[in-house]
Amino acid sequence: MSDFNSRLKLYQQRIDKALDACLPNGQAQKNKLTEAMRYSVIGGGGKRIRPAMVYAAGEAMDVDQNILDTPACAVEIIHTYSLIHDDLPAMDDDNLRRGQPTCHKAFDEATAILAGDALQAHAFEILAASDLHVNDRRRLEMITLLATASGSDGMAGGQAIDLAAVGNRLTLEQLEAMHRLKTGALIKASILLGAMCSPTVTEEELAMLGRYADCIGLSFQIQDDILDVIGDTETLGKPKGSDEKMQKPTYPSILGLDASRKLALEQHQQALSHLETLGQRADTLRQLSAYIVEREF
Amino acid sequence: MSDFNSRLKLYQQRIDKALDACLPNGQAQKNKLTEAMRYSVIGGGGKRIRPAMVYAAGEAMDVDQNILDTPACAVEIIHTYSLIHDDLPAMDDDNLRRGQPTCHKAFDEATAILAGDALQAHAFEILAASDLHVNDRRRLEMITLLATASGSDGMAGGQAIDLAAVGNRLTLEQLEAMHRLKTGALIKASILLGAMCSPTVTEEELAMLGRYADCIGLSFQIQDDILDVIGDTETLGKPKGSDEKMQKPTYPSILGLDASRKLALEQHQQALSHLETLGQRADTLRQLSAYIVEREF
Repeated sequence: MSDFNSRLKLYQQRIDKALDACLPNGQAQKNKLTEAMRYSVIGGGGKRIRPAMVYAAGEAMDVDQNILDTPACAVEIIHTYSLIHDDLPAMDDDNLRRGQPTCHKAFDEATAILAGDALQAHAFEILAASDLHVNDRRRLEMITLLATASGSDGMAGGQAIDLAAVGNRLTLEQLEAMHRLKTGALIKASILLGAMCSPTVTEEELAMLGRYADCIGLSFQIQDDILDVIGDTETLGKPKGSDEKMQKPTYPSILGLDASRKLALEQHQQALSHLETLGQRADTLRQLSAYIVEREF
Repeated sequence: MSDFNSRLKLYQQRIDKALDACLPNGQAQKNKLTEAMRYSVIGGGGKRIRPAMVYAAGEAMDVDQNILDTPACAVEIIHTYSLIHDDLPAMDDDNLRRGQPTCHKAFDEATAILAGDALQAHAFEILAASDLHVNDRRRLEMITLLATASGSDGMAGGQAIDLAAVGNRLTLEQLEAMHRLKTGALIKASILLGAMCSPTVTEEELAMLGRYADCIGLSFQIQDDILDVIGDTETLGKPKGSDEKMQKPTYPSILGLDASRKLALEQHQQALSHLETLGQRADTLRQLSAYIVEREF
């Protein structure tokens, strides 16, 4: 795990620089909207786990980090827009995110809605407009993948199911289906976008990485639920127990803590099994999977 | 004008069918989110003026209507998502849109936010994934164009300026700059996306059409402002005088009604002048420009 921690720090430094360079700087027309966009993406930092997935998967396929910056920015920007909107009063009504006031608290609700909207557009703009050193057809496939992962068959769809589930009891299967859309789709897109930057990656390799991504997406969510129960506000950057307060169905609430931990570790083992044919070059992806189930924030 | 009215009806029938086919039907997993998306895009109808711009510009460049359906759907979906978010309580707080309850009234605020988000993703997804019979590089340019027109340098940026302007007095130049982003950018994108579907359109033709689009974008907004003063709720589909109620700066409030009408007609004349080199094949675009300044709803 310590191996991945030091690598994650390097990824974080790299993505922070890339995000700063890729966001509108608002210098031409200094305004609240671009300030809010930068505040949410750059201000609080965040774990940058999705960009790290892009880098790790790309590196496993021998892709240069310079090429991976754009898809890494795109997934972090999509993730951030979804956080801004999720935090709104009409959704989860959160005041704190990544240790700082949420966007609608630091600015106002209208600006937060628009900042999220503009960030989503920006993610697709950079994927379509940047020189990625991959052919145009592949780039269209990458945009399609990210759009599908973000929309009604992905993240937004999962969030809608999540909202409808508040106060209801879900089965384990329903919970898993919800998370596969809400967080799993973008995590899978992050892994695949990194790998798709390789001109030589095979369909079989992408399929393996997709299965690996499904497993780490699930273990990521289980660990998130566990940390919401046992973590503290300072390390989480958001109030502990907020899921319980919101009466959101979680893995610990359905399975209990011990069985949840066990399930996360099973997913980690399964994730590793999908990397077997990739050999040594997938070591960072192995460390990433371990990091996800061992992390404490 | 009557010429364009009958053509607009045909475009409307065509786009309604295309939108119905391209939106997620939610039959696989009948849920509130896809219902809300379909409700807002299909439910109230709407003038479909942006899809009409795609068709008219494409036809002026001899593009088959079948090819134009996808960009026409994309711009209407982007437009609809922006209406859903603009209508939210934190923004314009409107209860009525296209003669039916706004999305957050018919469903709820959280669903309206997510429906807008998912629609934006869907617009980029269909542009990236559909077979447009244009080469991949051109398709990436089209996605870039639509994303830029939607984001902080386009529609969302203009909406942010608009919100900041409520209750303030703007100069004519500031009002024009705001509308160039808020409504102008997507109108320009609609004209250009249609023309870009032609494999033979030249850079010069695109430049001319861009200037034409700037003019009709402005005259469209001026006429919108005029109709908000003189129209009635039934034909507008929204309450008359809502701009005044919101203390929004408008052309009539700055210039008065007569000078606003004059300015709209000047823009129409300028629009026509940019079409001169295109000859007869641009007749529909000429009728479109006339329709925009003559329309009564």
